[in-house]
Amino acid sequence: MIRVNVIYPNNAGGAFDMDYYLSKHMPMVGAKLGAALKGMTVDHGVSGGQPGTEPAYRVLATLRFDSVDAFQQAFIPHAAEIQGDIPKYTNIAPTIQISEVKM
Amino acid sequence: MIRVNVIYPNNAGGAFDMDYYLSKHMPMVGAKLGAALKGMTVDHGVSGGQPGTEPAYRVLATLRFDSVDAFQQAFIPHAAEIQGDIPKYTNIAPTIQISEVKM
Repeated sequence: MIRVNVIYPNNAGGAFDMDYYLSKHMPMVGAKLGAALKGMTVDHGVSGGQPGTEPAYRVLATLRFDSVDAFQQAFIPHAAEIQGDIPKYTNIAPTIQISEVKM
Repeated sequence: MIRVNVIYPNNAGGAFDMDYYLSKHMPMVGAKLGAALKGMTVDHGVSGGQPGTEPAYRVLATLRFDSVDAFQQAFIPHAAEIQGDIPKYTNIAPTIQISEVKM
């Protein structure tokens, strides 16, 4: 089992339309990836570890798949459309990585 | 619902004992936090978005609670013991933040 982590840093001057992201972008991604996608999470940064401090990350999303192959087979045919939608909700370049699910 | 994100960057020279983390540290954390802890995840970075590249983050963990208050009430009495265990498995200082669960 793997997770694709999509992490938007909390840049000064960064803009992020959470309404569009939750109501349009992520449902579109879910529809494109289909049954290969086993689960999604979205976390919205509120603070650092101490309340009142700035969070390091604006948004942290995960997408879960059975394997790297399953992710790539589902994602690559729709990559241009999914990536082309990003400027509609943010000017922040996300950091993307693939992780093995340990827990 | 909130998640506490604990993110270990993939520093050059960083060491991380995943066996200790999964078999000793996280179970100890779970036992100390008790019923306030609603779920935990651990992701182990494998690559960037493209296979064969370096992941930005070595380990990404999340701990889920009903609220910031519930987290603090559960964590603060055990903070010294939990944080004191970190040098037993890593020399990487984690970035910690509190996020609202959106999905």
